[in-house]
Amino acid sequence: MTERLIVGICGSPRKGGAEILLRRALAEAENRGSITTKIVLLRQEKISYCSGCLECSDPVEQGSGCQVHSDSMDKIVDLLLECHGLIMATPVYLGGPTAQLKTLMDRTEPLLRYVAGPWKSAMRNKIGAGIAVGGNRGGGQEATLQALHHFFFVHDMVVVGTGPEEWPGCYLGTSAWSGIMDYRSEDLEAVRHDQVGMRAAAIIGRRVAEAVGRMFR
Amino acid sequence: MTERLIVGICGSPRKGGAEILLRRALAEAENRGSITTKIVLLRQEKISYCSGCLECSDPVEQGSGCQVHSDSMDKIVDLLLECHGLIMATPVYLGGPTAQLKTLMDRTEPLLRYVAGPWKSAMRNKIGAGIAVGGNRGGGQEATLQALHHFFFVHDMVVVGTGPEEWPGCYLGTSAWSGIMDYRSEDLEAVRHDQVGMRAAAIIGRRVAEAVGRMFR
Amino acid sequence: MTERLIVGICGSPRKGGAEILLRRALAEAENRGSITTKIVLLRQEKISYCSGCLECSDPVEQGSGCQVHSDSMDKIVDLLLECHGLIMATPVYLGGPTAQLKTLMDRTEPLLRYVAGPWKSAMRNKIGAGIAVGGNRGGGQEATLQALHHFFFVHDMVVVGTGPEEWPGCYLGTSAWSGIMDYRSEDLEAVRHDQVGMRAAAIIGRRVAEAVGRMFR
Amino acid sequence: MTERLIVGICGSPRKGGAEILLRRALAEAENRGSITTKIVLLRQEKISYCSGCLECSDPVEQGSGCQVHSDSMDKIVDLLLECHGLIMATPVYLGGPTAQLKTLMDRTEPLLRYVAGPWKSAMRNKIGAGIAVGGNRGGGQEATLQALHHFFFVHDMVVVGTGPEEWPGCYLGTSAWSGIMDYRSEDLEAVRHDQVGMRAAAIIGRRVAEAVGRMFR
Repeated sequence: MTERLIVGICGSPRKGGAEILLRRALAEAENRGSITTKIVLLRQEKISYCSGCLECSDPVEQGSGCQVHSDSMDKIVDLLLECHGLIMATPVYLGGPTAQLKTLMDRTEPLLRYVAGPWKSAMRNKIGAGIAVGGNRGGGQEATLQALHHFFFVHDMVVVGTGPEEWPGCYLGTSAWSGIMDYRSEDLEAVRHDQVGMRAAAIIGRRVAEAVGRMFR
Repeated sequence: MTERLIVGICGSPRKGGAEILLRRALAEAENRGSITTKIVLLRQEKISYCSGCLECSDPVEQGSGCQVHSDSMDKIVDLLLECHGLIMATPVYLGGPTAQLKTLMDRTEPLLRYVAGPWKSAMRNKIGAGIAVGGNRGGGQEATLQALHHFFFVHDMVVVGTGPEEWPGCYLGTSAWSGIMDYRSEDLEAVRHDQVGMRAAAIIGRRVAEAVGRMFR
Repeated sequence: MTERLIVGICGSPRKGGAEILLRRALAEAENRGSITTKIVLLRQEKISYCSGCLECSDPVEQGSGCQVHSDSMDKIVDLLLECHGLIMATPVYLGGPTAQLKTLMDRTEPLLRYVAGPWKSAMRNKIGAGIAVGGNRGGGQEATLQALHHFFFVHDMVVVGTGPEEWPGCYLGTSAWSGIMDYRSEDLEAVRHDQVGMRAAAIIGRRVAEAVGRMFR
Repeated sequence: MTERLIVGICGSPRKGGAEILLRRALAEAENRGSITTKIVLLRQEKISYCSGCLECSDPVEQGSGCQVHSDSMDKIVDLLLECHGLIMATPVYLGGPTAQLKTLMDRTEPLLRYVAGPWKSAMRNKIGAGIAVGGNRGGGQEATLQALHHFFFVHDMVVVGTGPEEWPGCYLGTSAWSGIMDYRSEDLEAVRHDQVGMRAAAIIGRRVAEAVGRMFR
């Protein structure tokens, strides 16, 4: 069977929970066989805001991406074009993904259905799934996963949650709690104490690998 | 100060978590002073579905409520008209409020902005807050609270979450986990082991009482 | 290629918008070839509430479904077991699916990952998509689609939105507006005036058919 | 009656729809009397990302805000501290608020319940409401409003939607459509053609003014 690529993007400005969970997910995905993974850590990248100019969807500039900025998005877009599955991981900041991750999300405009050229609908039918980790339980993890899902749907991707393992049933994706030992922990490894979250990260990795296998035969 | 009324509605078909949490919230609200509370347990009531006929908003039938059914909604509407604050509690069923509670929600059509007569916008400016309890952590509690909030917004109510206590930060409302000891527990008292949820129930009670006090002076 | 089955469930108590949109979606799905469709109209069915007893997931009663009620769910479960794709359509009632549809959703508990026997995770990897129609624009359509998605995720289904057609971009699913001509229209055919919604219904049908084709080869 | 302050924050990098709608809302709020308004346009400001260091909530640095960055947030925090109501307006970018606005949201960490000193829970009980405008109908407006609401709830604010006017019923807040004439319009004034959205902007202004009047007497 052909090798399939799953890309993981971590939206955290810090080492810590989101990255730990994402690495766990990607490791499990690789364990399924026929899967390669690559990881992008936004704490190491620099991306400018989308300025909303819509020049990227101007028919004259066919599929040539952002006409304004040249930055880390250049290589990230290459990975997005290449991948079959995408796992986005983020800490919950004020009820949603980090602004750093949102910046990346906004800059994917040149891959939408609206552009002309070869990047049109480039993410279509790729598998998407989310990982959210918060310092509080019920602290915005579900809302954050819904925001990631919305992004996937705008890209005409196919979205999976967890399953089929019975435990833990955080259905929308991986919902982890870095504050399980101490609700304002500054320990960057704290999420490792969250058995529910760590297990859910492994499950989402297997789930995406399975769905990629079915969609891209 | 005049006595203010907070009504609690429990959408569970069973005794158990949602009712325990709601009673905790209402008790805390009463502790704030100048607050009376009443509770409605849907497991003891019978409500017919809204049939979507819109006769209740027909100008001829001014404010006279549902023209089709006479059932437990008659007395529940009386409580809704009378109250200053409303706390709705529900177990999470398939990612949202129970169908039993949704039936009640749908039947509040005669209190919307669209009717003529004295019930028009009857819930306007009343305080709303939610309690959700699930067998899984991250198992739909936030989505369920958002569904309750949406209901409050359709009624032009004013919506509060938790706060200002630091712990636990389940911001949208009370997010509890009945499966903390055993993820498919059939113990109806299981939620009592969830310290986060029990505390968040007390907080939401105080929060609604405070907001009622400010809005209805 | 083997014939694949897409089931459409309409949650409206009335003839009208949701049914019109659902029939449009199913017709388009059939046009793709190798697809059969069946429709369930909840206005013609009678389903009892789930009582939350969890007997259906008791290992002794392996995969034998609800131990309490025998009603229209018997035949609906047969369709759910048989199908490869599921489109759920509903009018927006108080910010979410109708209570009638929520009743059906709650009664799918015997098909979840928690039961023993042949129905365990029966919906796993099937394709899900939603159609929501409201009397108001921005009147809860997205929230309703999210509620349907949550249901699909609890069942470990694979969820698709619209695309890849550029217009109209109501990404989460079909978002229609029956009040485009008259915001409290009682005309059951009113949705036909909503070109955006009607087109989005056709698109969702094609989208589900495509995804079914890819997932079930 | 004392003058009350409503602050409007526009998250768009461009002139255009969100700003037009926000100005309309603020003008209507002022028309209610006893209300002053101020506007912040993020296209004119520069804000660094929150780096998640949590130093702002370190008890030693009591209430002294961000310990890392000094930028436009300094003056924006002053407005947040001073205001009684907050209206946040944003175009829908990939299903949510712009990254520019999310950056601002993330940087409000020093006003949360977790800090020590005078800024602790500084936004508590202030009124929050949202305005979202998208190029597509059903293109993420509701999800964006929910993201803004989540932010308000994290800050223990009190959230209002629209009402009590019957038309248009986009309940969660102002939901506007800049693509009503042309779905990929680059006309920055295009939203003026959206009667539903323009009217809903006026309504949200009146609604916030009313709620501020009741909460801060």
